[in-house]
Amino acid sequence: MLAEHCRTIADRARQASYILTTVPTAAKNDWLLSCALSLSGNSSILEANRKDVAAAPGFGLNAAAIDRLTLTEKRLAAVAEMLRQVAALPDPVGEVLSGSTRPNGLHVLKVGVPLGVIFFLYESRPNVTADAAALCVKSGNAVILRGGKEAIHTNTALHRVFAEQLPKFDLPADAVQLVTDPDRDAVGHFLKLHDKIDLVIPRGGESLIRRVMSEATMPVLKHYRGNCHVYVDEHADLAMAERIVINAKCQRPGVCNAAESLLVHAAVAEQFLPKIAAALAAQGVEIRGCDATRRMVPVAQPASEDDYAAEFLNLIISVRVVPSIDAAAEHIRKYGSQHTEAIITRDLAAARRFTQTVDAAAVVVNASTRFNDGNELGLGAEIGISTDKFHARGPCGLRELTSYKYIITGDGHVRE
Amino acid sequence: MLAEHCRTIADRARQASYILTTVPTAAKNDWLLSCALSLSGNSSILEANRKDVAAAPGFGLNAAAIDRLTLTEKRLAAVAEMLRQVAALPDPVGEVLSGSTRPNGLHVLKVGVPLGVIFFLYESRPNVTADAAALCVKSGNAVILRGGKEAIHTNTALHRVFAEQLPKFDLPADAVQLVTDPDRDAVGHFLKLHDKIDLVIPRGGESLIRRVMSEATMPVLKHYRGNCHVYVDEHADLAMAERIVINAKCQRPGVCNAAESLLVHAAVAEQFLPKIAAALAAQGVEIRGCDATRRMVPVAQPASEDDYAAEFLNLIISVRVVPSIDAAAEHIRKYGSQHTEAIITRDLAAARRFTQTVDAAAVVVNASTRFNDGNELGLGAEIGISTDKFHARGPCGLRELTSYKYIITGDGHVRE
Repeated sequence: MLAEHCRTIADRARQASYILTTVPTAAKNDWLLSCALSLSGNSSILEANRKDVAAAPGFGLNAAAIDRLTLTEKRLAAVAEMLRQVAALPDPVGEVLSGSTRPNGLHVLKVGVPLGVIFFLYESRPNVTADAAALCVKSGNAVILRGGKEAIHTNTALHRVFAEQLPKFDLPADAVQLVTDPDRDAVGHFLKLHDKIDLVIPRGGESLIRRVMSEATMPVLKHYRGNCHVYVDEHADLAMAERIVINAKCQRPGVCNAAESLLVHAAVAEQFLPKIAAALAAQGVEIRGCDATRRMVPVAQPASEDDYAAEFLNLIISVRVVPSIDAAAEHIRKYGSQHTEAIITRDLAAARRFTQTVDAAAVVVNASTRFNDGNELGLGAEIGISTDKFHARGPCGLRELTSYKYIITGDGHVRE
Repeated sequence: MLAEHCRTIADRARQASYILTTVPTAAKNDWLLSCALSLSGNSSILEANRKDVAAAPGFGLNAAAIDRLTLTEKRLAAVAEMLRQVAALPDPVGEVLSGSTRPNGLHVLKVGVPLGVIFFLYESRPNVTADAAALCVKSGNAVILRGGKEAIHTNTALHRVFAEQLPKFDLPADAVQLVTDPDRDAVGHFLKLHDKIDLVIPRGGESLIRRVMSEATMPVLKHYRGNCHVYVDEHADLAMAERIVINAKCQRPGVCNAAESLLVHAAVAEQFLPKIAAALAAQGVEIRGCDATRRMVPVAQPASEDDYAAEFLNLIISVRVVPSIDAAAEHIRKYGSQHTEAIITRDLAAARRFTQTVDAAAVVVNASTRFNDGNELGLGAEIGISTDKFHARGPCGLRELTSYKYIITGDGHVRE
């Protein structure tokens, strides 16, 4: 029964995806602008959100989670602004990625096409509903949204706006569907439908992602963990290093591109560690260090293997003194999550070595890890940051939600 | 025991992959040229191949399969030539794919990087061993090769050449490993090692691919089926259509980009079908058609649903008369395999509609389906043709064996 229901939703999405392949860019953009207009100050959405916020303590949400769940007029305006930004981005569907005329006169174009149907699973922040709907439809994909039960009223109200506007611009009504069935089994049913769903994107905690990875029969685009390091090289500008470490750790400690670990070259450790420790302590950051660190920073707690591997998402940092840039790279290889890794150095050879050998979605020289973000890198809005190397890596915007096809045009060409 | 053995091989490949990330392009190219030199007229390889060919009937190989297994001096020279061609291709590692300076002055580069470790499973053609070794190493990946037992002596002799040449150019000895363990369980063990292996590429029959899809815990890049159609539009140049259909069906019927099905617009069916049927019959092709086809082509057998879905890889073609271009697209959507689909037309609007609505790795206008091939499209040698939409689609050459990273360079940049 539930399985049948899920299959029907997926079938509808598949049908919608066929139509979306060829809709004009202007229709998609007008839809986005119309949704933006309809969202601004929309009292029914704010009212629905108040229901969710009132029910939130019953779901065991803490104050930070309730804050993320809460929509205000200002936050709704920011969502509308995001829709306008997505409307302003170039359409990746039909984009000519490369092309050539072959020696035999055959014309070859490599052209962007939608992936098809995307199943998007996410937790409580309601703005993610809008991000996903906007990015998927603009990139020509039909999307099946499955948000958290804590945000169900808000998501339903948001979805109503997106769905109501679709037919006005001759877009298929099933381009954006919301699954509100509270049964967790629904997710399992969708994950089996590889003939209907081309991609699943889980966005949430580690247990959600692990479940999707083990059950999905279609490709998964996932943001797994962000255990990001800042390595302070022996040739670092130490004042710059201090500013960057404080920004990377403290500016927004709960996000994936915040720094979780500090590596310091032994040659500058005596000079740098007491200063940065004081600056971190002033921000309320707890330090867990190696033996060498603890000799120079008496307040530091001992760091365990688990601390080096941890994504704290909190005001805690692990610290280790390393003898060389290669030792830093080795540590990052062992404990890192291939998300964002930074080096602070004035030495070009050191920067070159680090950016070549460290394997991560973003490798940063003399800047905060916090810059690994779709907007900051110029991709526009993002649906997540991929920690995979397959298909898309790092911030995933419109282009990353597409595939391509070759269009080959001849004049009666046959192969000899 | 076997599990441990497989893990050791994968571990070695992982270590080699770290080194391969930073080796100079010249070392990889010199290695390829040196292998080419060593292969040409290599009598120990030819001798090993004679052993495999002698044993082939015992494995139940038919004449065509034995022919594919057989190496001659000429074929070995062609393998050497392929190595030289790969050496001449640009290195995708370190290639700057795009870049920008952000408004805040941050420099952002998107740079090609290897995927890491590739597990390549394939059936009996020995030249595939050389293709895989060359393409994987040139793209900076370590490769674990697992060929068919029918080619074990040839593969061992070929692998020896590749492995022996690696240290001469300071390339890691484990960049190319061959798994000769006859135990089929070895494959299962490798497919579990997602922490060591980044990608598995199965190249062979449907049962091999199905097994890999169900057991693999890492991404799979697969070439599944090629049920390719030629649609003859009402505005087709019928003489051109005849040349192209004959070429697409008959030039090499056993390959994935050969045509398996012919769709003809009703308006030209009376005129075209008897002619093409005679031309196909002259090439020994059996026709299985719809009722309308059979009225115009008395020799045609009735086509079943299975015939429309079949990848014959043989001198058989299914034929259907369709009332419109959209009906042709609908048929292709239902029965096709998203590999290669062709339209023959003089009408620009028809070509435009077909290339937009038909979803396949390659959509071809007025040319043979046989052109969907890495060399023909200008990618150089290919490791296979992907029928997936995720990561890479269509012919997979060097670029398709890579991922990318963002390199972000600032001057003390922090986020506000």
